[in-house]
Order: sequence, then structure tokens, then C-alpha cells
Amino acid sequence: MYIDLNADLGESYGSFQVGNDLEMFKTITSANIACGFHAGDYTHLAKTVANAKSHNVAIGAHPGYPDIHGFGRRDFHFSKEEIYQMMIYQIGAVKAFCQIDDVHLHHVKPHGALYNKAVTDDDTASAIAKAIADLTPTSLVYTLPNSRLEYYANMLGLKVAREGFADRAYQKDGTLVPRSISGSVLTEMEDISEQILGMIFDKRVKSLTGEWVDIDVQTICFHGDGQSADRYLTEVKRMLEARGVKVQPVYTFL
Amino acid sequence: MYIDLNADLGESYGSFQVGNDLEMFKTITSANIACGFHAGDYTHLAKTVANAKSHNVAIGAHPGYPDIHGFGRRDFHFSKEEIYQMMIYQIGAVKAFCQIDDVHLHHVKPHGALYNKAVTDDDTASAIAKAIADLTPTSLVYTLPNSRLEYYANMLGLKVAREGFADRAYQKDGTLVPRSISGSVLTEMEDISEQILGMIFDKRVKSLTGEWVDIDVQTICFHGDGQSADRYLTEVKRMLEARGVKVQPVYTFL
Amino acid sequence: MYIDLNADLGESYGSFQVGNDLEMFKTITSANIACGFHAGDYTHLAKTVANAKSHNVAIGAHPGYPDIHGFGRRDFHFSKEEIYQMMIYQIGAVKAFCQIDDVHLHHVKPHGALYNKAVTDDDTASAIAKAIADLTPTSLVYTLPNSRLEYYANMLGLKVAREGFADRAYQKDGTLVPRSISGSVLTEMEDISEQILGMIFDKRVKSLTGEWVDIDVQTICFHGDGQSADRYLTEVKRMLEARGVKVQPVYTFL
Amino acid sequence: MYIDLNADLGESYGSFQVGNDLEMFKTITSANIACGFHAGDYTHLAKTVANAKSHNVAIGAHPGYPDIHGFGRRDFHFSKEEIYQMMIYQIGAVKAFCQIDDVHLHHVKPHGALYNKAVTDDDTASAIAKAIADLTPTSLVYTLPNSRLEYYANMLGLKVAREGFADRAYQKDGTLVPRSISGSVLTEMEDISEQILGMIFDKRVKSLTGEWVDIDVQTICFHGDGQSADRYLTEVKRMLEARGVKVQPVYTFL
Repeated sequence: MYIDLNADLGESYGSFQVGNDLEMFKTITSANIACGFHAGDYTHLAKTVANAKSHNVAIGAHPGYPDIHGFGRRDFHFSKEEIYQMMIYQIGAVKAFCQIDDVHLHHVKPHGALYNKAVTDDDTASAIAKAIADLTPTSLVYTLPNSRLEYYANMLGLKVAREGFADRAYQKDGTLVPRSISGSVLTEMEDISEQILGMIFDKRVKSLTGEWVDIDVQTICFHGDGQSADRYLTEVKRMLEARGVKVQPVYTFL
Repeated sequence: MYIDLNADLGESYGSFQVGNDLEMFKTITSANIACGFHAGDYTHLAKTVANAKSHNVAIGAHPGYPDIHGFGRRDFHFSKEEIYQMMIYQIGAVKAFCQIDDVHLHHVKPHGALYNKAVTDDDTASAIAKAIADLTPTSLVYTLPNSRLEYYANMLGLKVAREGFADRAYQKDGTLVPRSISGSVLTEMEDISEQILGMIFDKRVKSLTGEWVDIDVQTICFHGDGQSADRYLTEVKRMLEARGVKVQPVYTFL
Repeated sequence: MYIDLNADLGESYGSFQVGNDLEMFKTITSANIACGFHAGDYTHLAKTVANAKSHNVAIGAHPGYPDIHGFGRRDFHFSKEEIYQMMIYQIGAVKAFCQIDDVHLHHVKPHGALYNKAVTDDDTASAIAKAIADLTPTSLVYTLPNSRLEYYANMLGLKVAREGFADRAYQKDGTLVPRSISGSVLTEMEDISEQILGMIFDKRVKSLTGEWVDIDVQTICFHGDGQSADRYLTEVKRMLEARGVKVQPVYTFL
Repeated sequence: MYIDLNADLGESYGSFQVGNDLEMFKTITSANIACGFHAGDYTHLAKTVANAKSHNVAIGAHPGYPDIHGFGRRDFHFSKEEIYQMMIYQIGAVKAFCQIDDVHLHHVKPHGALYNKAVTDDDTASAIAKAIADLTPTSLVYTLPNSRLEYYANMLGLKVAREGFADRAYQKDGTLVPRSISGSVLTEMEDISEQILGMIFDKRVKSLTGEWVDIDVQTICFHGDGQSADRYLTEVKRMLEARGVKVQPVYTFL
């Protein structure tokens, strides 16, 4: 049994510090690195790619809407063409840092409101998939199981890693409970552990409203901007390894 | 006799329109395309790379300081490392659009205050040269003759195209008269023609203060944000061709 | 018979030039001045307030969504509280320039996507009205007739000037045809004149789909970013004055 | 004996959290609130003004260079006129929030690189002083003792509060040691206490290079972005009150 543990890193912007990346790197196996549109900048991107490499963490681009102030969590309307273009720009920037550090761009995962829109919106999902296929066809795509992005990525011959969330509550249709709703973020170690074990061993999660949802994932997301993420992440990893789960980057087992 | 005619294009930002790129493309032989830091954005970058390709114009990245409001014309202090990182980010983004359009990144030319700083500042010049050498070593570097950037580019084995300016007045040391000084921009067709002919046939220009300055250039810059640039550019090209000068991209003759 | 002619001015941003404000000032009677969120900046705001004063043009604040790249034309979701706060901020900035130039803030008109949202969305409309009532209760509110903003402004005791559009096509419910739809912007002088005369003398306009819509307006908007706005504006003014219409700022007749 | 304790607050930007403002409010007597140019935004500005009022903390505007990414700590060149205009804009925005909350704008203190430039640069200092005199002449000016800003503020009849720094090392000319130099920030409670007591009781501080510098201050700055500022601030206040110093806003004793 294998699982990849990923986190959103490199989200600091200028002097504005976000998260505790160096702690997270000790435990995760793949990193989604902000590209400078919703968070991150050229300096933090450079450092985060270099740190990921030195910790043997697989590197992913984490493109988002162009909205530093809203941290990419506000919904926008962009045309299919604009989505494609902003993906090429952001993934291109990350690829450049991968090139100079001589590492592979392991995956691409859209961020925030863009991630959510790619679950259900065909224009957004197909534009993202096409940008990845055109620019970096050997990179994996991280997405929610059964999303439109999964559909279009498969259509274009891309490899998809289905993603679960350690600390986000689910709706009964398998999508995430919006952050604006109470109970959307799990904060108790016990609830987080239970959700993770359910995903891996039983291939299901319990939704916020009590229904069981089938889910089959290759990677689980931990939030680097959570204040205690680095603490519970270590515990989770130990717990998984104690039960015989191999915690490794997706490319090693997919 | 050969000369390349270049212009700064793709400088529109969102709804803010700059220049008349489609007119310029008819005449120039290489384009310096804004990368989204001082001007341009993912949308205009995509369009401008595609338009350059369809007009057989050689494509250059035109990275600048991160300052949309100041159009990259304000001086900043950045560390050597920051300059290197912002070059990798911006050139990487342009390279991505070149990759999907299957065209070569012909050259890199720093913009505005960064261009000027690279003339005299060792940290800036060496950081720019190193970024180009690491990321796109087969691309040419456009710079003022005898600049520090020329020195470091040569040191790292990069090819350099020395650049003259069609409508900017020169100081007696061969640098440009700052825009803040009266007379810094030539506006009369006669003065512009004379300066260009002097550069090509006599390999010298007359400075604003009257001294002759030796100058040997392979490319001449026209400003796309000038309101009549597209008009006089056509005249200049005709004039040059009438005198037997071959107007072609730098890579064809360097 | 009285009418006010208004235009959106001060929309330049740094080196990015928009419109031909100095021409527009010769003809209009009130100006909606960008506040730095969707367009404009502290420098252009300062100049535009000063120019309006010297041309005896009534000054309005033109607040918009915080989105320079999208020119305030993209729709966003903001909470009622956020709308209120961004109004206070932007109107406050304009008021400061009015204070140092010793002129009255004549009116407030929301911009672009925010203007449209205030027509139908109660949270947005009530937040805007409350901000004006709290900060500048003697200023007029410019809005589409029968909008929710008109309703809330009236509720709070604010004076409202109902606004018509010279060069925008109408839908049969009296709202504007979205810019994304073909035919949304009138470009022929004849169509523009007819629409204006209909508004003033018959108190109705013909919608894009052919229905007559009742409309009673005190001010008519001309777009300063239209390339020929300053030309047709002069003709319109002459035409109106020839027919006995007095072209004056709203405060003189409301 | 009286002293005011101030801190830079309201520096969060969108989702990017800075400092622990609610803790700081319990102890400080005046707050310098970011205006949205180098830090802060309309939302955090609104909350911070309201929180200052409810904690009976005197409110100051803390305008800076327009540079979120650089947190206003990078030096820029702006003309005298641009400095004046950006002061009017930022102070105007803060004044608007003061107006709706019915509180007085107690003081203005420039931020970061602008603060430092106003110490020695006549154009910058006179532009800041003129903006305050024109827009809010009853507000105090916080500045380093003997700065050019003090000079111009006095010339224009403004009241000046001379400011000392709790945790910043001094140079022998009474200016602050730049942050880029080792030892520029004091981190030991003992050093901080000693510096504060020296300022208040002996009217002098010891420079980083060992010389004594005469200094007479009415307010002392604590940095809200320091991780432990709220902790040592409480201790300092207790220590001062134990020695009979009255800790109060400047306006109560100047």
C-alpha cells in the first residue's frame, strides 16, 4: 500500500510570511509550489524549488488565479483562452526553476478557486489539461476524483493522481465543503487520522452530513498554512508507516 | 551590410493598451516582448509571441523590474540573487510560450531601468548574464556596446548583439541621455535618419553635447510606445534598403 | 429642460494612458474620477480633480472593484462589509483631494461590474448607499433608473441622479446590454444622437431587441475611453443647446 | 514624566497575516495604521481603526511607498509632487475611516524607507509636511529627532512628537542602523529595557559603535511584526509605570 503526502508551499510573498515550509519538507513527499499569481514570488519560488530538491520532495507547480490580495480563493470569470494562457505562464515559470536546478516537474495542481472550478467547469478543466499536455506532458495532474479535470487530463493522455484532503470536510457528492461553512476544516488530530485511514484502508470518507462517500486516492493534501500542520503531519506519517503504508511520491507507484 | 531593427512590444496590460504592435510587426526583424513584470501579461504575451511567429519576427524576452505602475523605469535596489531569480522567472514564462508555439527564443534584452543598470553595475549585469547562460544559453543578449552586461555575457560564452537607439540621444560616454533630460528623445525624422545612417555607415553617433562617439551595432531599437514609431520605421527601412543595407534578424548574420 | 453630461475620467495608471481627458473637460458638466482601485492612481487623481475644478466641471468619485488588470469590469464576490469598506477607502481618497482643492464632492458613481451589480444586488447596493450616507451625505448618487442602489439611496435620504448612456445599447428591462454581446456599444453618431434625443424629449429608449423602454434621466454618460468620444460629445452638446436644452451639472437643477 | 508607546499595526494584507494586533492594543497608547500602499488594505484598515477606538488607542496614519511586495522598505525615487500626492491619498483614506468612526486622526508617521528618507531629504520631508498641513493640520507628526521632517513640520506650524525606537540600534548621528546590518535589531529584553530607560531618564542612547547620543523623545516605537513584541511590551509598560512614568498618548501631554 502506497500513499503520497502533499502540501501547498512557497506561499510567502515578499515580506509576508506564510507557513512553516522547512518543517513541512521533512515529512511530505510532494510539494505544490505557488507560482506568483495567488501567492509566492520569484524569490520564494526559487528557494522552494531548491529546498524541495534538497529534501528529495517531488516538485509540483501550483498555479492559481491572478489575485494576491484574495490568495486565489475568490471566484473569477476567465475565458477558456485566458485560463490556458495563465497556466502556460505560471507552469513555464516553475519549469524554468526546475531546469536550472536540474529536477523534473513532477506534477501540476491548480490552486484554490481554480482547483474547485476545474472540478465541475468544462472550459476551465479542458484549458488546464491542454496547457499541461502542451507544456509538460510527462507531469502528473493532481485533482479531486471524478472531476472534469480528471476527465480532460485522461483524454489528453496525461497521468492523473487522485487527491484526498486530510483536514477538509467532504460533501456527499465527494466535493469539499466550502471554507465559508462551519465545520469545513477539521482541526482535531483524531478526526484527521480517521479520515486519512478511511481513505487509504476503506477507500471512503464520511461527509459532513453523515453519508459515506467512495474515494480512491493516490495523494493526500495537508495545508501548509495551517498553524499546526507540521505537527500533525509527522504523527500521521508515523501512524501510516506503523500500519505498513509506504509514504512515497506518486511517480514511484503510479 | 546587415542590420536588425528591434522594438519593445507586448506592453499592453489588461485593458490598458500600449503601442501599435501589429503595425510594428510589418517592419521590424526582432521583437522584445514584455514579460508581465513592468508591462504585458499572460494574455498579451501569448498573442505577441504568436504574432511575432506569424510575421517571421525573431522573438526576444524583455524582462524588467517588478513595477507595472512605474513601467520598469524607476530604479530599484535588488540583490544579485533577486535579479537572477526575477530573470529566471520572466524568461521562463516567455520560453514556455515559445515552446508551445515551437519557436526559438532568439534573444533576451533587459528593459528600462534594469537595462541601464546592467550597463554599469556588476552585480546586475553578472546576474542577468548568468540567468541567460543557465536557462537559455543559445539566445543572444542585446545590450549597449561596452556595457558590463556585454562583458559578463562574453565571459559566459553567450553571443552578444550590440544595440543602438534610433530615437534616443547619446551622452559622450556612449550611454543614453536619461529621459528626464530635455532633448533625450529624438522626434524629427531627419535627426533619426541621420543617427541611424551614422551608426551603420560611419560607426559613430553625435552626442547631445556635440562629441562624436564610436559605436558598432548589430541591432537598432525603435520604441513601440512612440505614437509615430510605426510610421517612421517604415521610412527608415526603405531608406536603408535603398542604400543596400540588408535588414534581417541578428541570428542570420552574427 | 436640463441635462448633465458626464464621463469617466482620470483612468490613466502610471505610464498607461487612457482617454483624452483634457478634450472631454471642455464639454462635459460632471466627471466621474477613478479612485485607484480599477484605474487611476494618486497622481492622476490629483491632476484630474484639479483639472475638473479649473474647467468648472462637477467632481464625482468613481469607485470600483480592486482590479487594475481587469479594469473593474470582472465580476467578483465581496461581502456587504467589504463593499462598504472599499467604498469608504476610495471615496475618502477622492474627498481628500477635493478638500485640498477646496471643491465639493458633487456625486458618487460606482464603476463597471460594481455599477451593474448595484442595479440588482441588495447587499452591494445597500453597502454603497450606506458608505455614501456615512461619509459624504450631501453628494448625489448616479445610478441606473429603478436600480436597487436608487432604492437604498432614497431610503437613506440621499439625492439620486438617474443616468442614461449615450453609446450603450439597452435591454428591454432597462439595463445595459453586456459588453460581451455584439451591438452593445453604439458607434454611429446618428444612433447616439437618436438615443439621447429620445431620452431627453420622449423619456424613452429603444432596446437592442426593438422594445421601447421608459426612462427618465438627469445625467447622460459618455465614455472617455472611447477613441472619438470627445468628438461626438461636442456635436451632441451643440445639438442639445440648439434645441433649447440647458447642459449643466445636476446640482444646479435637481 | 510622560511617554507614549506606539506600534505599526494593521499591516495584514488580504489573507496574509502580519503581527498580533489585538495583543498590542492592550498595551500601546498610539497606533500607526498601514494605509494600503506598503501593507494593509481597506478591510484591515477599517478593523484596525475600529479596534484602536475601542481600546482607547490614539490613531495615526502610517503612509508608505506604493510597494506591497517590498513592504515599503525599498528605496524609490519619487518627485516632490508625487510624494505629496501619495500622502494626500493615503492619509485621506485613513481620515475617512476616522470620520465614520467619529475619532480624531491623532498623528501621521511615514513608514519604512519613506520614514528614513524624510530624515535627510528635503523634497521628501517638505512634501510630507505640506500634505499633513493641507489635509489634517491638527494631527501630530511622528519623526526622528532633528530630522528634516521635524524642520518642515515646525515651519508649517505642525506639532511634532519626537520618536525613539525600543528595539532598533542607533548610529552615532542619531539615525537608525539599517536593517541589513548585523545588530540593527535588539532582541534581548535587557537591552531593550536599558535603551528605553536611557531615553526617558537620561535622554540619551548608546549607539551600536559605543558612542552616547543625546535624544529627547515623546513616543517610543515597538514593532508589531516582531514575534514577541506583545510580550516584551507588557513588561516594558509595567517597568515604566513602576518607576513613575505615565504611559499616555502624546496629545495628553504635548
